Amino acid sequence: MSFQIPSDTTLGRIQRAPENFVSRTDIAFVNRASETDRRSFFKKAFAAAAVGAVAASPALATAAKGDPAILNLPAHTKGLGQPVAAMPYGMPSQYEKNLQRRESPGLTRVGAASVSFCPLQGLFGVITPSGLHFERHHQGWWDIDPTQHRLMINGLVKREMVFTIDELMRMESVSRVHFIECGANSGMEWANVAVPTVQYTHGMLSCSEFTGVPLIKVLEYCGVDLKKGRYILAEGADGSSMTRTIPMEMVESGEVLLTYGQNGEMLRPENGYPLRLIVPGVQGVSSVKYLRRIEVGDKPYAAKDEAVHYVDLMPDGTHRQYTSIQECKSVITTPSGGQKLLTPGFYNITGLAWSGRGKITAVDVSTDGGKNWKSATVQGPVHDKSLTRFNLPWVWDGKGEVLLQSRAVDSTGYVQPSYRTLREKRDDKSIYHNNAIQSWRIDASGEVHNVHVG
Amino acid sequence: MSFQIPSDTTLGRIQRAPENFVSRTDIAFVNRASETDRRSFFKKAFAAAAVGAVAASPALATAAKGDPAILNLPAHTKGLGQPVAAMPYGMPSQYEKNLQRRESPGLTRVGAASVSFCPLQGLFGVITPSGLHFERHHQGWWDIDPTQHRLMINGLVKREMVFTIDELMRMESVSRVHFIECGANSGMEWANVAVPTVQYTHGMLSCSEFTGVPLIKVLEYCGVDLKKGRYILAEGADGSSMTRTIPMEMVESGEVLLTYGQNGEMLRPENGYPLRLIVPGVQGVSSVKYLRRIEVGDKPYAAKDEAVHYVDLMPDGTHRQYTSIQECKSVITTPSGGQKLLTPGFYNITGLAWSGRGKITAVDVSTDGGKNWKSATVQGPVHDKSLTRFNLPWVWDGKGEVLLQSRAVDSTGYVQPSYRTLREKRDDKSIYHNNAIQSWRIDASGEVHNVHVG
Repeated sequence: MSFQIPSDTTLGRIQRAPENFVSRTDIAFVNRASETDRRSFFKKAFAAAAVGAVAASPALATAAKGDPAILNLPAHTKGLGQPVAAMPYGMPSQYEKNLQRRESPGLTRVGAASVSFCPLQGLFGVITPSGLHFERHHQGWWDIDPTQHRLMINGLVKREMVFTIDELMRMESVSRVHFIECGANSGMEWANVAVPTVQYTHGMLSCSEFTGVPLIKVLEYCGVDLKKGRYILAEGADGSSMTRTIPMEMVESGEVLLTYGQNGEMLRPENGYPLRLIVPGVQGVSSVKYLRRIEVGDKPYAAKDEAVHYVDLMPDGTHRQYTSIQECKSVITTPSGGQKLLTPGFYNITGLAWSGRGKITAVDVSTDGGKNWKSATVQGPVHDKSLTRFNLPWVWDGKGEVLLQSRAVDSTGYVQPSYRTLREKRDDKSIYHNNAIQSWRIDASGEVHNVHVG
Repeated sequence: MSFQIPSDTTLGRIQRAPENFVSRTDIAFVNRASETDRRSFFKKAFAAAAVGAVAASPALATAAKGDPAILNLPAHTKGLGQPVAAMPYGMPSQYEKNLQRRESPGLTRVGAASVSFCPLQGLFGVITPSGLHFERHHQGWWDIDPTQHRLMINGLVKREMVFTIDELMRMESVSRVHFIECGANSGMEWANVAVPTVQYTHGMLSCSEFTGVPLIKVLEYCGVDLKKGRYILAEGADGSSMTRTIPMEMVESGEVLLTYGQNGEMLRPENGYPLRLIVPGVQGVSSVKYLRRIEVGDKPYAAKDEAVHYVDLMPDGTHRQYTSIQECKSVITTPSGGQKLLTPGFYNITGLAWSGRGKITAVDVSTDGGKNWKSATVQGPVHDKSLTRFNLPWVWDGKGEVLLQSRAVDSTGYVQPSYRTLREKRDDKSIYHNNAIQSWRIDASGEVHNVHVG
């Protein structure tokens, strides 16, 4: 507990709309509105909130004591509420309905081959609620009957076998917290398309407690030939025929899981129910959803999603294939693009850091575009290949421009690079594997914008 | 990764119904059925499943290759599925609708002052999905408008203050994984009422990643008098007027949180949205929901829920007040009451352990009613005052009776007691704070029953 709010410092005020505390009318409005309309709506909402907001003040407590309005107790203090199990499966408050995953309009032509982004700006801790996990589908999602679904193991094994989901669930399981990040996350930023909010810049990112069986255990049960069989091909059951090659050393480490559980319950249909391969630290596409087959082979498979997609176009016109580890990266989620600081005062700078190569060991935060850095508090326990929360208390003086940045370091010693460093190697034509430092500019007016610097 | 399935051992088969993979018709049936009907339904379901189930077998893979039925690809392999953000807030699969929290019929007269139990038997890892968190309401639950809700700090502080939720959310936050267990969890078992399933024996128990502000930080901001102010009173805003005393040393440790976040998003209405006091390791009633006031005082408050309820009746007719720590406890969730082992073979014994005094350091499992014990694998990282998952691979020979037990040890060295030990001190008239070893008897037929032994 590092922080202390000096008793002579006022708490600053921030508007995070539209994610929190939006009235039902506002929700309908936002959902209808186009991106442009939405932004002007935010401004109106901020203005209204600024008028209506109540500041923490000793005066209030005193006023409250003598105020007869306090005796007008709200309904919830006077009557019986809803009974238990009114919702056998509970849902968020009606006041939180605006915290949702959103498709970026026009990103793709078909919603079944598109992305919905996770609202990182409204989340806490490191666990992503399963209902808000980002989506990337190549041919839409399905709710597959688990009693009919099968996993086949074939190729370089002594015994080719078919498993039911129930059988996999009867083996010894492990549970681990891992992030999944799409290889194309922050891809728009390469070409200086500064999308407005962290939901769209970094929202192809989520983190869950996954439960499943280490794939190596099942391969051993099938009598895998580990001498020749140095690669596996993972194949999904949906119409996209998604197949990905994964090197056997990742499988041998025990990290690759035949996963059925996510945050304590079965996977959600959008996330591959009833069976998903989780390949920790590797771009999301390798965590094949609706997994139906694992083939053990002696070389990479060069499948369509490896030869044509998910490759990095380099400055010399060649491309890098099988670049799949998600390198160390971080982003500040509050304050972030689209938010507005309404008053000078105390703020908590918070965000997420992660690395596909191990654990986060440090996160530094700059408020002056990288001239000076301060160590943020890294929230433990830090998991391997997991989102990691950081916090840094900060006082905004409300004068001039602020350039907010975060820079993460992982357990291999790797330091998250600047755009300049990344572009020196890779130019700006890539789509995948952008792990550069993100910058948010806070204007003197308090508005926060996505900018590309350094 | 300790386990190995010997290649000459068949995977055993288990029916966990009605939690997993139940057809829609079955769900409707179960929801309508009384407890007795439900049990006979289970038996029918088991029988049907035994006929329909497909065993893992090398033969299958071979058969599949030549079977033209395999070429009749399912719809999900041939067409476009649902688009992204079809559910802006996602829900579980239609095939999992039977995994739900359930009220024990007849437990109380009013559903607004009752309990719904968490389906522990169908959960994985340690995180409880927020939609399945157990409920204990004293006057029903409410969805309180967070913009209207306030937290007042008064009593032995220099500055009495009123905070909005938004203000609390702007302070530096911490996130921690903790269990909440009702003090009355497993209370029915004292009097030898052996309720049939682990959902009803231990289901007033859940675990979440909570995010909030350490209460001590806010008290310090208000200028708390820590010399005189050795107790706080926490008060909820709902009609039950729930108030609880908490010793200041718990607050000073930084553990007591003014909590708004649960599993990455805002608290759910049933769990105290928009503000809940989380008091880790202490019986759930102290984690006051809909928190509206903290008073700092110089002695315990002896509120109605401390003087009349949540006290332990001792053999001599006196009662213990302020016994609030949830002592070290564990339970096997699979196999557990109401399940049935269908065939001899390989099984994974799995369950949960927790302690209100620290971390779980070991869990032992016995299959012969406590004569012999084996060390289970404790799934790390182990959190403080958190549910902890354990696993033990096991081969059932299908002959004779098995008496399954688990026994947890925590970081203070405390060992979970037997019923005999507990009753020697406390007789069998208590309701609260039963942390005895739970026994499940597996009949030769494979049926699993709740029994009281040792």
